[in-house]
Amino acid sequence: MSAQQISVAVLGAGGRMGSEAVKAVEAASDMQLVAALGRGDSLDQVVEAGATHIVDLTVPDSTEANVHFAVENGLHAVVGTTGWDAQRLQRLEQKLTEHAGVAVLIAPNFALGSVLASAFAAKAAQYFESAEIIELHHPNKVDAPSGTAVRTAELMAAARRELHVPPSPDATESQLDGARGAVVEDIHVHSVRLRGLVAHQEVLLGSAGEQLSIRHDSFDRASFMPGVLLGLRTAASRPGLTYGLDGYLDLGL
Amino acid sequence: MSAQQISVAVLGAGGRMGSEAVKAVEAASDMQLVAALGRGDSLDQVVEAGATHIVDLTVPDSTEANVHFAVENGLHAVVGTTGWDAQRLQRLEQKLTEHAGVAVLIAPNFALGSVLASAFAAKAAQYFESAEIIELHHPNKVDAPSGTAVRTAELMAAARRELHVPPSPDATESQLDGARGAVVEDIHVHSVRLRGLVAHQEVLLGSAGEQLSIRHDSFDRASFMPGVLLGLRTAASRPGLTYGLDGYLDLGL
Amino acid sequence: MSAQQISVAVLGAGGRMGSEAVKAVEAASDMQLVAALGRGDSLDQVVEAGATHIVDLTVPDSTEANVHFAVENGLHAVVGTTGWDAQRLQRLEQKLTEHAGVAVLIAPNFALGSVLASAFAAKAAQYFESAEIIELHHPNKVDAPSGTAVRTAELMAAARRELHVPPSPDATESQLDGARGAVVEDIHVHSVRLRGLVAHQEVLLGSAGEQLSIRHDSFDRASFMPGVLLGLRTAASRPGLTYGLDGYLDLGL
Amino acid sequence: MSAQQISVAVLGAGGRMGSEAVKAVEAASDMQLVAALGRGDSLDQVVEAGATHIVDLTVPDSTEANVHFAVENGLHAVVGTTGWDAQRLQRLEQKLTEHAGVAVLIAPNFALGSVLASAFAAKAAQYFESAEIIELHHPNKVDAPSGTAVRTAELMAAARRELHVPPSPDATESQLDGARGAVVEDIHVHSVRLRGLVAHQEVLLGSAGEQLSIRHDSFDRASFMPGVLLGLRTAASRPGLTYGLDGYLDLGL
Repeated sequence: MSAQQISVAVLGAGGRMGSEAVKAVEAASDMQLVAALGRGDSLDQVVEAGATHIVDLTVPDSTEANVHFAVENGLHAVVGTTGWDAQRLQRLEQKLTEHAGVAVLIAPNFALGSVLASAFAAKAAQYFESAEIIELHHPNKVDAPSGTAVRTAELMAAARRELHVPPSPDATESQLDGARGAVVEDIHVHSVRLRGLVAHQEVLLGSAGEQLSIRHDSFDRASFMPGVLLGLRTAASRPGLTYGLDGYLDLGL
Repeated sequence: MSAQQISVAVLGAGGRMGSEAVKAVEAASDMQLVAALGRGDSLDQVVEAGATHIVDLTVPDSTEANVHFAVENGLHAVVGTTGWDAQRLQRLEQKLTEHAGVAVLIAPNFALGSVLASAFAAKAAQYFESAEIIELHHPNKVDAPSGTAVRTAELMAAARRELHVPPSPDATESQLDGARGAVVEDIHVHSVRLRGLVAHQEVLLGSAGEQLSIRHDSFDRASFMPGVLLGLRTAASRPGLTYGLDGYLDLGL
Repeated sequence: MSAQQISVAVLGAGGRMGSEAVKAVEAASDMQLVAALGRGDSLDQVVEAGATHIVDLTVPDSTEANVHFAVENGLHAVVGTTGWDAQRLQRLEQKLTEHAGVAVLIAPNFALGSVLASAFAAKAAQYFESAEIIELHHPNKVDAPSGTAVRTAELMAAARRELHVPPSPDATESQLDGARGAVVEDIHVHSVRLRGLVAHQEVLLGSAGEQLSIRHDSFDRASFMPGVLLGLRTAASRPGLTYGLDGYLDLGL
Repeated sequence: MSAQQISVAVLGAGGRMGSEAVKAVEAASDMQLVAALGRGDSLDQVVEAGATHIVDLTVPDSTEANVHFAVENGLHAVVGTTGWDAQRLQRLEQKLTEHAGVAVLIAPNFALGSVLASAFAAKAAQYFESAEIIELHHPNKVDAPSGTAVRTAELMAAARRELHVPPSPDATESQLDGARGAVVEDIHVHSVRLRGLVAHQEVLLGSAGEQLSIRHDSFDRASFMPGVLLGLRTAASRPGLTYGLDGYLDLGL
């Protein structure tokens, strides 16, 4: 796939993520931004502008129609909008069978580092006796633990069950309420809230005489853009529907 | 005070801490080990051997008699044995008034790094909006949080009250049970238990745009010896009773 | 000092630091912003507006005149502008002798966390066998190590000399060029440059069986404002010239 | 493969690693130690004792004969002894073709966490703009950087070349000698030497707005045993020669 083929239309260009995507595509030497659509703009502009790929960063109400339009016009789609439930995914897979060669990537999380960290943590959790998670966020966050921490714990727990790894050892007999954190499928998860922080997560794995720590720090929204660009660069070689950025990372984990 | 004046008798030399102290004193170029007493040995040996200082690492039942004996004989004492309640301390202070120039240091914790870390954390906690503690230990520990973490939280909370620092901000509305840790006087404390670890503590302090972290790692019992040696070297210049190694560290915090 | 007495004029309000200061003063419940001066505005406005304190975040060419004006009018000054050499400081001290009760704080660094971290590192360096520094910055930085790292190393080295602490042990016989970092007065300093980072520094201190780490992370310019506000709140109680924010922190180190 | 089939003979049982292996096999509920051979003991004991697997932790001079003996007798071998050059490996592969179903694992490093960390670092290095390594060891180490750090850098550099990732950005114009560390194939490597530490390595990866850190801590020799046990448990299902523990970890990276 040569560089001139990545002609990108950004949908939702007026939003916070969309405006970051516009900047990222403009800065990428192997891409050109051919259209940037906001609320109310006609999808026809995408085709008229000669786009080969779309990035959809709109809203749950319009993302399905946008992606179907792209597929029908033979354009690859990289989608960060939420709202893709099982029924929508099924309808999209059906649509894609009629358009061989077209690729759609739908990813709930475009932070490459976060996706890698979760995949590594799940793999490594199979080989260590103990496993815990610390997640740290700004103090305006209303839920604890973070959704990413819960998903990471679930992935780690599933990987451990697969190899029949017993629960982490823990001799605690007396504790102040909450000291040992929340427990998500046998994995203890601790949530720190601290002014100055953004979104951070550390997975700690221990065995006799050693520790492995995998930490991801998100400092700002710009961290999602390398994942979007990777999606655009990889899509043409992965026809059909891919759910989750890890599907493009060849992790083989 | 010249080096040849530090002639040390170790009491409790057969115990785990005592045997480390014997090794540490022998290895110090400015000290000589003149006696190493175990259970049942007569205290008279200490005087006969020409000790100028004793290190007491015995048991709660004998430490008071040992220290009074030292004071009466004009020897400085460095004490790591527990069991010194208010009454014992009062009796010792009374005894010391009769022996001007004699010094006794009683310290619940001889790990220099841990003592410094707690003192720094308390000072810094006055200047940051958010403060939390993570302590990490081996999985055979039966209580959570660690005693050191509880004491550190109490010191930090007291320092914050002194300057009327409001509680750390926290918008948490929904949480899995325990996610936000234990709360010790408004300070959240998280306890990790992980095979491979020994005893570790990290204090996290945050304000808009910045974070300060103070971490102490204890890898083995040898870490208590520099504090014992510092006590021996400093005692002669601090007559009277000092409680806590920080009293010898000139922290001025 | 009651809250209504802190009436602040910000000089250099059009600059990057100055505009942050304007926001910070406006947000502080115990202060009021009475004037915000840019380039070319007359200093008389400061007096007319009823300021009790000024914040000078201007340029080296005008800061001296601004501060003398403040002192002559009985206003306390908090100064972040550079360019205060020995002669200027001497002239200012002379001027202050004629205006008893007026306070001036000149600080090269208003990041509270950074100032605390350096002070703690210097104190702790006296009690550990080994001491090294790792500083980490964004990859657009042109010098290595950072000025802060060099100053921290100098403070640590001076503190160690005071107690005759020998150099950190190091058995290295063969190394790839540069592996052991730069050496600043016997302290090894390592400079990491990494996209995504802003300004970070970690001081590592080690003795047998233990490690103490003191880390400061600056995520953005907002981190300087708590130091400016602390300066404004404290100035009235510290008449005369104070150089360095640590002079207001009661560190006693 | 049922538990009773793992009957292990440890060769080199008198050495430091060998004696750890004896303890580890004895403690494993799915293995039994049937023989522990020291210098001069006859290999025939291995067969007489009914071993199904051997662990070779001897010396370069005897490891090849030991392994050939095992293969000829249909025993799987897990080998931690050094000295396996290209010629020896070739002779062993030849021998294995004559004994279908027999497995030999030769691993220069049995620390699971270290092997995982290197593999993860190499994979992740393909997706980040910046990559550096910090390794930290006790101060008695004579070389810098560590062999593990050099190998990790080589793996990371090779992975980056494969995807044509440009060198990490670095605007440094002036530096104190050594500040930016050693450079191993475009990867900067920093070596810290600190009393109290054992063997530690941290890989830092950065892109706009995010950082991924992968850290491994080795606290003592016990950390090699989980890798040895994994080798014993996995060997029967991987006939032929495998070089490097990662070959048994299904990393697919």
